Amino acid sequence: MTAKRYALGLDYGTNSVRALLVDIRTGRELATAIHNYETGAAGVVLDARTPDLARQNPADYLKGAEVAVRRTLALARTAERSFDPAQVVGIGVDTTGSTPIPVDREGTPLCFGKEFRKNPNAMAWLWKDHTGFAEAAEITALAAREHPEYLAKCGGTYSSEWFFSKILHCRRADPDVFDAAWSWVECCDYIPAVLTGETRPEKIRRGRCAAGHKAMFNAHWGGLPAKEFLAKLDPKLGELRDRLYDKTYTSDVPAGRLAPAWAKKLGLPAGIPVAVGAFDAHLGAVGSGVFPGKFVKIMGTSTCDICVWPSDKPLADIPGLCGIVEGSVLPGYYGLEAGQSAVGDIFNWFVGYLQPGGPAKGSHEALTRKAAKLRPGRSGLLALDWNNGNRTILVDQRLTGLLIGQTLHTTPEEIYRALIEATAFGALTIIRRFEEYGLAIDEVIACGGIAEKNPLVMQIYADVCGKEMKVARSSQTCALGSAIAGAVAAGAHPWFAEAQRAMCGVKLRSFKPDPGRHKIYAELYGLYRQLHDAFGTKAEAGSLFNVMKDLLKIRDRELES
Amino acid sequence: MTAKRYALGLDYGTNSVRALLVDIRTGRELATAIHNYETGAAGVVLDARTPDLARQNPADYLKGAEVAVRRTLALARTAERSFDPAQVVGIGVDTTGSTPIPVDREGTPLCFGKEFRKNPNAMAWLWKDHTGFAEAAEITALAAREHPEYLAKCGGTYSSEWFFSKILHCRRADPDVFDAAWSWVECCDYIPAVLTGETRPEKIRRGRCAAGHKAMFNAHWGGLPAKEFLAKLDPKLGELRDRLYDKTYTSDVPAGRLAPAWAKKLGLPAGIPVAVGAFDAHLGAVGSGVFPGKFVKIMGTSTCDICVWPSDKPLADIPGLCGIVEGSVLPGYYGLEAGQSAVGDIFNWFVGYLQPGGPAKGSHEALTRKAAKLRPGRSGLLALDWNNGNRTILVDQRLTGLLIGQTLHTTPEEIYRALIEATAFGALTIIRRFEEYGLAIDEVIACGGIAEKNPLVMQIYADVCGKEMKVARSSQTCALGSAIAGAVAAGAHPWFAEAQRAMCGVKLRSFKPDPGRHKIYAELYGLYRQLHDAFGTKAEAGSLFNVMKDLLKIRDRELES
Repeated sequence: MTAKRYALGLDYGTNSVRALLVDIRTGRELATAIHNYETGAAGVVLDARTPDLARQNPADYLKGAEVAVRRTLALARTAERSFDPAQVVGIGVDTTGSTPIPVDREGTPLCFGKEFRKNPNAMAWLWKDHTGFAEAAEITALAAREHPEYLAKCGGTYSSEWFFSKILHCRRADPDVFDAAWSWVECCDYIPAVLTGETRPEKIRRGRCAAGHKAMFNAHWGGLPAKEFLAKLDPKLGELRDRLYDKTYTSDVPAGRLAPAWAKKLGLPAGIPVAVGAFDAHLGAVGSGVFPGKFVKIMGTSTCDICVWPSDKPLADIPGLCGIVEGSVLPGYYGLEAGQSAVGDIFNWFVGYLQPGGPAKGSHEALTRKAAKLRPGRSGLLALDWNNGNRTILVDQRLTGLLIGQTLHTTPEEIYRALIEATAFGALTIIRRFEEYGLAIDEVIACGGIAEKNPLVMQIYADVCGKEMKVARSSQTCALGSAIAGAVAAGAHPWFAEAQRAMCGVKLRSFKPDPGRHKIYAELYGLYRQLHDAFGTKAEAGSLFNVMKDLLKIRDRELES
Repeated sequence: MTAKRYALGLDYGTNSVRALLVDIRTGRELATAIHNYETGAAGVVLDARTPDLARQNPADYLKGAEVAVRRTLALARTAERSFDPAQVVGIGVDTTGSTPIPVDREGTPLCFGKEFRKNPNAMAWLWKDHTGFAEAAEITALAAREHPEYLAKCGGTYSSEWFFSKILHCRRADPDVFDAAWSWVECCDYIPAVLTGETRPEKIRRGRCAAGHKAMFNAHWGGLPAKEFLAKLDPKLGELRDRLYDKTYTSDVPAGRLAPAWAKKLGLPAGIPVAVGAFDAHLGAVGSGVFPGKFVKIMGTSTCDICVWPSDKPLADIPGLCGIVEGSVLPGYYGLEAGQSAVGDIFNWFVGYLQPGGPAKGSHEALTRKAAKLRPGRSGLLALDWNNGNRTILVDQRLTGLLIGQTLHTTPEEIYRALIEATAFGALTIIRRFEEYGLAIDEVIACGGIAEKNPLVMQIYADVCGKEMKVARSSQTCALGSAIAGAVAAGAHPWFAEAQRAMCGVKLRSFKPDPGRHKIYAELYGLYRQLHDAFGTKAEAGSLFNVMKDLLKIRDRELES
């Protein structure tokens, strides 16, 4: 029997970082640990006067790596006495994104210096920060006029969640921070840079995934958007381009090797490869077994939907998709990303902010238990899942939630279920968009906290979408995807597909659609689309007089059935 | 000093009955007591499978009269040692409505018999019962074709809350009860009938108020709708007309005199006049001092808006008004009734059903305290106040609630405030409709539980409507109005206006609109009307793309101001 070998995945989420140690031959997850970020509210720096603001302290990332990896190694030794850190062959890293950090000449985050300590603009601009919504509209308008090709690859609208919207907003809102920033580095590029001991911006190996999906990087037009394009938005943004990057890398190659100082901190062998970083969703899709025909939904606070398509086959630009980027998921394939700006976050809002009935009665568990007993259509409620905007297919952060159909007897569990259904309708809208453009979806594989923990949500998604929902075997597909990247970057597997065959799978329990419920949901989806198009597009809404009445008709019919 | 004289008002609300003893010369309220109905949920019989159903047990009314009057008299003796029940000169009665009761040949409610005991269809059909919505549409359609004059006086739509919708629904849903009913009697006619010892349907003096507002009774077409009209809806409904009534009375005349048996039960002198009954809102308006130019809002679980107009002056039919009935409020004046199907009930729903944060944090008091600190426009929220349908100006019970603008940070107090604002926008819509048709509104006088208890609501109404809101001096204007009717029916005052001058007033504290807040609310009202018309009328909605965006624009501007 040959000695076991392991890869380590580091998964930087919205509230915490996770380390996961995986056997590269079997996919067995030997040990895992998480560390919760310490700054702000659950790791997120907020500002009550600017509801769109969401930042993070990069110091939390560094402390988190150390704590989580050390704990993981300690647990690994408990789980398997013969475990030796020397068996770890490579590290992969995934993070949220676009989460750019303004850094100085040495690549150090500005908020680490005295001048900008505690200034949220000098911290990491978390993916869900929407302060740059006006700048996003400006970038979209300029690109539509002068470089429509830029937009074609990112769904027709440049989002406020993305790289240049945030940087341009910083230029406008806090010129001191902007001027002090030598460069801006995505979180997923920053972590491997730190671990490999080379943070100088010009030396960092930037990932294809972040660059392509969020910074309009594309080989067709020579990398990042043209300098003169950026300069038209702001001359200083044009100048910044020279201090960004012109090459990008896929995650099957190393960003570098683990630096001795960090090897010591983590308790790992110095010199092992650290893969080029990518976004959590993209490596999560890898860890879920994404492949042409296999559609992956990473379901957490928000949702990312990922599929891939061979680079050598024709593919139309799909309106409303967050991005189509060659090599962003699997090298040799287009990575197609869609997503919902909030899914679990909407349920968390309802539970955390409204807490109906108090903390005990209003818990996810209690509400789920009651909502599971309800039947489709009987509440007369319908919601839009836009509490955090709409990423796909509208690509519009300036949208908000909507709940319709409340009576004087509407219960919390009915609203909770309506919110779940709303996110399912949002998911269906995305799947339909893919299918309309010819991407066959043979299989849906879900992963992430919600897929793991909430069979009610999964069953509603199956019933709404009319498709079987499978669940990835791993509970940590993002970290597993990172570990796969680490293993491939280390040469322990020749390419991703082979690593996936060895390390991925689906759970036995899947969720099959019920034809009766699917039929009711198809009716409700018609009303959802009516509201979706009325509030989310510029199309004439026609008459909406039917909406409340149809909901009541469906309710009354179902109550009598 | 002449001996003091008192009138007794009996006010039958949705959950309880109140007795009030008033000095007829000064309006001093000597004593009052309430009795909560005992059947069902807070006095209302519900059915989980039929959310539109709301019934009451008439036995609760009778026990309530006895308990509340006896307690009131006992308290009166405590308040004033010299008080003697012999000083009570008359009784007035107001109730909710339309609340018809199916009765037998003797005028006894069918649910008092063995056959239909516990059958909700044999009980009182409470005003807010909407089970007859299909029948309401049928009546409206037939009247529109054959007797448009019927509809012109009740706002163009016959409501599911009204007399014939309920009776026709009973005919369809429970023919046994319908067949067993010799006649149907409004609650406000039933109580005086019981008190005067004459319940035989053909002997009951039916009130103009209930007949005119809810049963399309009008002298212009000879009383109730034509027999052949009713027969077209259902032959048996045509037959029923002969067993209803062809004369009605205003509340300044006696229905009869207090019967000895009931005098004994109540502890009052036998033979004192009992005024013809009317609806709570109408006598509440009397108790608030309604007069031409003085617009009264009775604000409770729902809201009634009442104004009067001299019968000898021209008055157009006003679309969307619940009713225009000569003599329904003050003899010699048209009574004009409008209203909102739910106001306090919406806040009660939010507090009682959602209970955000638990019973303590989610109480009206706690939410009001927090909501009072918020400023208009800052939440980005907007709601429609249709959780229980829309009485005026849409006259459509098949409408539901809507909340728009939720983010991931929306708080319970923001929603609570948005619900208050929604009801204020609904109130403004009604006021505007009156003004559009030439009824000058010089003064708004509010009364009822909300006007009494919630200065935040009153201030928001003032700010939204741009009008000073006064509050009636009495906390019990409905019962006071009933007492006034009792006093006038007894001849102790020659007519209502004189009794009002003696017995009514407004509180010192009024609520003046703030011009800055009014301006913001004017913007929000524009968006409210956009949603109101989109979901509540058949008009083309145009594009609603602006709604969420405008709310966010207002929010961001106000957060920065």
